[in-house]
Amino acid sequence: MRFDIMTLFPDMFDRVFDQSIIGRAKEKGLLELHCHQIREYTKNKQMQVDDYPYGGGMGMVMFPQPIADCFRAVCEQVGERPHLIYMSPQGKTLTQQRAIELAQMPNLCILCGHYEGVDERVLEAIVDEQISIGDYVLTGGEIPAMALVDCVSRMIPGVLADEVCFTEESHFAGLLEYPQYTRPAEWEGRAVPEILLSGHHGNIAKWRHQQSLERTYRLRPEMLETAPLTDADRAYLESLKAEEESNDDTAI
Amino acid sequence: MRFDIMTLFPDMFDRVFDQSIIGRAKEKGLLELHCHQIREYTKNKQMQVDDYPYGGGMGMVMFPQPIADCFRAVCEQVGERPHLIYMSPQGKTLTQQRAIELAQMPNLCILCGHYEGVDERVLEAIVDEQISIGDYVLTGGEIPAMALVDCVSRMIPGVLADEVCFTEESHFAGLLEYPQYTRPAEWEGRAVPEILLSGHHGNIAKWRHQQSLERTYRLRPEMLETAPLTDADRAYLESLKAEEESNDDTAI
Repeated sequence: MRFDIMTLFPDMFDRVFDQSIIGRAKEKGLLELHCHQIREYTKNKQMQVDDYPYGGGMGMVMFPQPIADCFRAVCEQVGERPHLIYMSPQGKTLTQQRAIELAQMPNLCILCGHYEGVDERVLEAIVDEQISIGDYVLTGGEIPAMALVDCVSRMIPGVLADEVCFTEESHFAGLLEYPQYTRPAEWEGRAVPEILLSGHHGNIAKWRHQQSLERTYRLRPEMLETAPLTDADRAYLESLKAEEESNDDTAI
Repeated sequence: MRFDIMTLFPDMFDRVFDQSIIGRAKEKGLLELHCHQIREYTKNKQMQVDDYPYGGGMGMVMFPQPIADCFRAVCEQVGERPHLIYMSPQGKTLTQQRAIELAQMPNLCILCGHYEGVDERVLEAIVDEQISIGDYVLTGGEIPAMALVDCVSRMIPGVLADEVCFTEESHFAGLLEYPQYTRPAEWEGRAVPEILLSGHHGNIAKWRHQQSLERTYRLRPEMLETAPLTDADRAYLESLKAEEESNDDTAI
């Protein structure tokens, strides 16, 4: 899979994808990442890429022309028109499901905005999809683009060592992950839960699943509304609720 | 404000905060960023920082000891114990409101996990808060930490040129932003909306506000449930609904 990133700050991406899982995927040829400096495409004599907004207001707005010309150059390099995503607080919030769908595409191009944003006309003219990584304000689209590249890349077959690996992770089963422990068995007076040392795989799997349910119930209860729950799961959640209510009674 | 980041991949942060608004804030001395290599604190003879999870399963889990010792070193360097955030899909989802609160703190320390995560005991022992940037899976906590540093830094007084700047942005008024336009007035056959060229500030402000309302209504209607709306806003939204319904009738 090939990612093309259009940005005013290509240096920001220099070291981000050199290491760990994504770095290895690049080495194995499973993905390519190309950054394009939008400024190189401006026809403005002072090399400007932005100007004041029409109608007044704070900040600067990026010109349509350099972005459109940069995208034309990307299309030529790729050999076809890639799906173009604009990272924007106005976009649909990124979900794991959307990342899985995007990982099916052969090429993705990502436009990173900056300043007060990008002239609306170029968005209408060339952008296929707007994606937000969350309801908070960032300086530009670069860090959101990094998040998108990382999230989508992991879903490309071969990038993770084993597909089991990612199907077990949070937000796949619609539940939060269970707690993890490693050596030593006792650390600064804190012991690993005994069941994990028991060697009984069935009991361990059940305990972990219940831990996932309990965490989700306590930290992100709204996730339970859409999670695929078994009858046993529902019974366990009822027992947690009952326990809480009886604790409340004791407190009185 | 001082940020300390504990990570196995400090190089990832090398170029990310050198430029634009955050780069200038660093130059002005408004914020400091220090990265700490967790691996330097391991007492394992092979310099390992992780091992298989107790109870079996895929992936590796980070040892508690190097993280706890790294944090002790950070506390010494800072001269007090900073608030410690662990970037985690199990955390509370980041909001702009939480970023504003965190920007009041003199120091923040951020722990970036990797692999299958971090031994639960060290989280219990030292972590004050867990934050997630969204419901999708990433390789490690580094990119989420970048998002948090960017988002919080912008809320530190003096970092943005003018406080008006960020109070006008999306997710402050609880609405999506209105579209922005800059020169030229016509680009590839697309004209800037006439009202923005009118010079009538009152009408422009009204048009922009209605554009924000309309975008939010079409793209993120759930945001309207909590946005502070005036009677005029509600009337405008009703008129949009009525228009849609009459269009639906025409379609039949």
